[in-house]
Amino acid sequence: MTSPHFTAADIAQHLGGVLRGDPTVVITGLNRIEDARAGELTFLQNARYARYLRQTQASCILVPADFPEQPRPGQAFIGVEDPYRAFVAVMPLFVPPAEPPWGLRHPTALIDPTAEVAPTAVVGAYCVVGPRCRIGERVVLHPFVVLYQEVVIGEGSVLHAGVVCYPRTVIGKRCVLHAGVVLGADGFGFWERPDGGLEKIPHVGNVVLEDDVEIGANTTIDRSLAGSTVIGAGTKIDNLVHIAHNVTIGEHTAIAAQTGISGSVRLGKRNRLGGQVGVVGHIRTADDVIIEAKSGVSKSLPVPGRYFGSPAQPHYAALRQEAALRQLPELLQEIRRLREQLDELRARSDASHQQDG
Amino acid sequence: MTSPHFTAADIAQHLGGVLRGDPTVVITGLNRIEDARAGELTFLQNARYARYLRQTQASCILVPADFPEQPRPGQAFIGVEDPYRAFVAVMPLFVPPAEPPWGLRHPTALIDPTAEVAPTAVVGAYCVVGPRCRIGERVVLHPFVVLYQEVVIGEGSVLHAGVVCYPRTVIGKRCVLHAGVVLGADGFGFWERPDGGLEKIPHVGNVVLEDDVEIGANTTIDRSLAGSTVIGAGTKIDNLVHIAHNVTIGEHTAIAAQTGISGSVRLGKRNRLGGQVGVVGHIRTADDVIIEAKSGVSKSLPVPGRYFGSPAQPHYAALRQEAALRQLPELLQEIRRLREQLDELRARSDASHQQDG
Amino acid sequence: MTSPHFTAADIAQHLGGVLRGDPTVVITGLNRIEDARAGELTFLQNARYARYLRQTQASCILVPADFPEQPRPGQAFIGVEDPYRAFVAVMPLFVPPAEPPWGLRHPTALIDPTAEVAPTAVVGAYCVVGPRCRIGERVVLHPFVVLYQEVVIGEGSVLHAGVVCYPRTVIGKRCVLHAGVVLGADGFGFWERPDGGLEKIPHVGNVVLEDDVEIGANTTIDRSLAGSTVIGAGTKIDNLVHIAHNVTIGEHTAIAAQTGISGSVRLGKRNRLGGQVGVVGHIRTADDVIIEAKSGVSKSLPVPGRYFGSPAQPHYAALRQEAALRQLPELLQEIRRLREQLDELRARSDASHQQDG
Repeated sequence: MTSPHFTAADIAQHLGGVLRGDPTVVITGLNRIEDARAGELTFLQNARYARYLRQTQASCILVPADFPEQPRPGQAFIGVEDPYRAFVAVMPLFVPPAEPPWGLRHPTALIDPTAEVAPTAVVGAYCVVGPRCRIGERVVLHPFVVLYQEVVIGEGSVLHAGVVCYPRTVIGKRCVLHAGVVLGADGFGFWERPDGGLEKIPHVGNVVLEDDVEIGANTTIDRSLAGSTVIGAGTKIDNLVHIAHNVTIGEHTAIAAQTGISGSVRLGKRNRLGGQVGVVGHIRTADDVIIEAKSGVSKSLPVPGRYFGSPAQPHYAALRQEAALRQLPELLQEIRRLREQLDELRARSDASHQQDG
Repeated sequence: MTSPHFTAADIAQHLGGVLRGDPTVVITGLNRIEDARAGELTFLQNARYARYLRQTQASCILVPADFPEQPRPGQAFIGVEDPYRAFVAVMPLFVPPAEPPWGLRHPTALIDPTAEVAPTAVVGAYCVVGPRCRIGERVVLHPFVVLYQEVVIGEGSVLHAGVVCYPRTVIGKRCVLHAGVVLGADGFGFWERPDGGLEKIPHVGNVVLEDDVEIGANTTIDRSLAGSTVIGAGTKIDNLVHIAHNVTIGEHTAIAAQTGISGSVRLGKRNRLGGQVGVVGHIRTADDVIIEAKSGVSKSLPVPGRYFGSPAQPHYAALRQEAALRQLPELLQEIRRLREQLDELRARSDASHQQDG
Repeated sequence: MTSPHFTAADIAQHLGGVLRGDPTVVITGLNRIEDARAGELTFLQNARYARYLRQTQASCILVPADFPEQPRPGQAFIGVEDPYRAFVAVMPLFVPPAEPPWGLRHPTALIDPTAEVAPTAVVGAYCVVGPRCRIGERVVLHPFVVLYQEVVIGEGSVLHAGVVCYPRTVIGKRCVLHAGVVLGADGFGFWERPDGGLEKIPHVGNVVLEDDVEIGANTTIDRSLAGSTVIGAGTKIDNLVHIAHNVTIGEHTAIAAQTGISGSVRLGKRNRLGGQVGVVGHIRTADDVIIEAKSGVSKSLPVPGRYFGSPAQPHYAALRQEAALRQLPELLQEIRRLREQLDELRARSDASHQQDG
């Protein structure tokens, strides 16, 4: 494969940006500013990364339109309104998006005769499509996707290699499921027998992803006891997240990696959950709740805002507690001093009283 | 597919329950009380959910036999001893359990000629069954199950899509392994060389699941250095759990999602571990230990009971500490006041002594 | 399969160790000391396990050369310099390493005609090797490995069942990827629209594993925005770990299970991270940093050493804080006593002043 290459002038023209420095410098790849080498294009995201500007070997840098500095010899700056978005706009020049083989039914794919697959959908190698599944237009199933019976996938959704959907899973339009995602495994529910043994509670519900949902690699979402575990439209979930049975997540919520949501939780719209957060079962959050990484949410959060800690508290209270905690060892010494001085004072006072008396 | 439908009277009869309200109302599906719509059957699990009773659109509700309220017009209540269990008893009417294709050897399955597969076992599409494996009666292997050599699976166990069992894994009877489970990967053990490099310690042990074990999606259990990593009979493990090499887990223990058990740990019988718990290596727990979510267990817990926190402490001590922690910022101010007042008192006392002297 | 069996004398000879006790005792298997039964060989790792020596049923025990105790009748001790390493040296006698079928192209493997596969490489059943992939000598792909386009794998690497590599992933020499690993899924990056909706930021970078890297089961490593997410040579990563986009990890670092590294982090060389650690985005660590289990790293750690806690602090400070925290409930009572006694003293002092005045 021959690498693509463009001059800085080509890229400035493509972006409608203002070029400073050498217009003839040749660009053959993209990189982040901290790693960029000669021949690469990068961008200056924000002030935080300005220190990299002096040391980067990048041949061309997308900068804010009003950026005051000048490129070094043999380097070009391209002034644009939003360097990050301009960088993304340049990506397809260097890494052309692969055009899926629309309409492919790979000869090794096993498609049940009762399944309905839209003409443009792609069913990749070794996919297994169960009875009565319905697959929309321009859906792409990468190799080894397994759909148990009666799975429905809306148009334009992409399921990466090895995704497994249990019976009756419903996936909306334009969803992206990364490799290893499991939708619809049994919820973790058991009755405890008097002898401490555990009796499985059957689950006959399903998982429903609304439109424009993205799910990260190896994330698991369990099916509901009955009815549906629901992920709201536009919600984005990172890798290795666990969503338990009967959960409902509002629209446009983002959940970072390794977070776990326990059974029957209802998260509001536009929530933002950091990584490794845990949410206890049966609670609710308001819309516009932000929960910072590693927090443990132990009760409902009915008020929008930022929360932190384990148990999670309003951000300000949690920070105040954390600061106090850092002072705790010194505090112990201060209390010991208070005790000594108080005892001394009391002894003195007792002596003086006795004297008086 | 035509939806099943029954009248409230049909269901009352099926359950031997007492019907109140409209016996002719038609039920076509099941749902949880907070989501149920017209035409659906639900159940009133406990007092916590009573608030949903007024707002649910459910056409039929399973209630405790002595429940005092009456259904609305066009609604039916069915009084039963245990509404949750009655609900589960009704499930098969609406979602008939799929009968596996007993005895199937899917033509795409690759079964090593030295493997023994019981006549009734199901080997699904694209399964790979390695040399000298032994698969019991009524075992179901869903698509893409990979069994390396010498894996043994007891009768009635179900392995969902994409489960991987490394060499010599032993699975008992009636186990359920959800999609993406990996049993028997190498334990994470290394020798550190003087230069800080890491030298892999080979692992030749295996993983043993006793009877009636259930393992959640994408959970991983590593094989032992030698001998076996053992999961006791009746134990249930949720999604994305990590069980390290050389671990032994007692019978009838339950482990919630994203919990991690480090190497050589021995958990007792009937333990209950919440989600995102971490257990440090080489420790033991007694039987009947309960460890709450997000706890970090840093030493053995030889006494049955409830534990919480990081490091985990007896529940009462942990709650007491947590409550004290919440008061810490106020405490800091109180200590500052004590200091000021004490200093003032000492100054006064010094002055008075000087006066006296 | 017939089990291997050796006498204690055979094993002593194999190891060049010094035999005490019964040389004729027959050994048919290996186990850890706490589980070993008659007929098994085990080893005494260190003093911690000495208590097992009295109760073990092992027929033969590898002990330090200078170990003073004597075996029981019918038992043998073999004195060696390093019992753990000697145990590992014996493993191949009992569990002979399987010789891969060098050069195999399983007839069910789908290898794109533009891919280059070295003659000795093994491509297992149902593998999918995409366009322009390059696979080195003695690489082993177990069943169901999926390589999207342009994946490069260095000689001697092993990919276990179901590993998925997204486009342009680069894997060095002698790497081991356990089952269910996903390399190169999209980084979790979104722009927030004014209405709170989330707009996906495309990622065109890749994942690079340098030589001798091992990755545990179901671990996920996301590709970079542009350039590469890099795992340094000799680094070992456990199961269910999440490594986000744009991360760089130094050489010979070890990361235990369920740890998560957020975007654009740079870990130094020879770092050691315990399980369930979380590292916030955009920070750096020095070489030789140790971070204990469950810690939350919230800022850069530029000084080598041991860290602990959430937020992570130098180990000594964290232990001191943890100890202080345990005393907190008693502290509260002490402060209440201080308050009472101080108030009493002030009242006395006020009275005495009034008396004086």
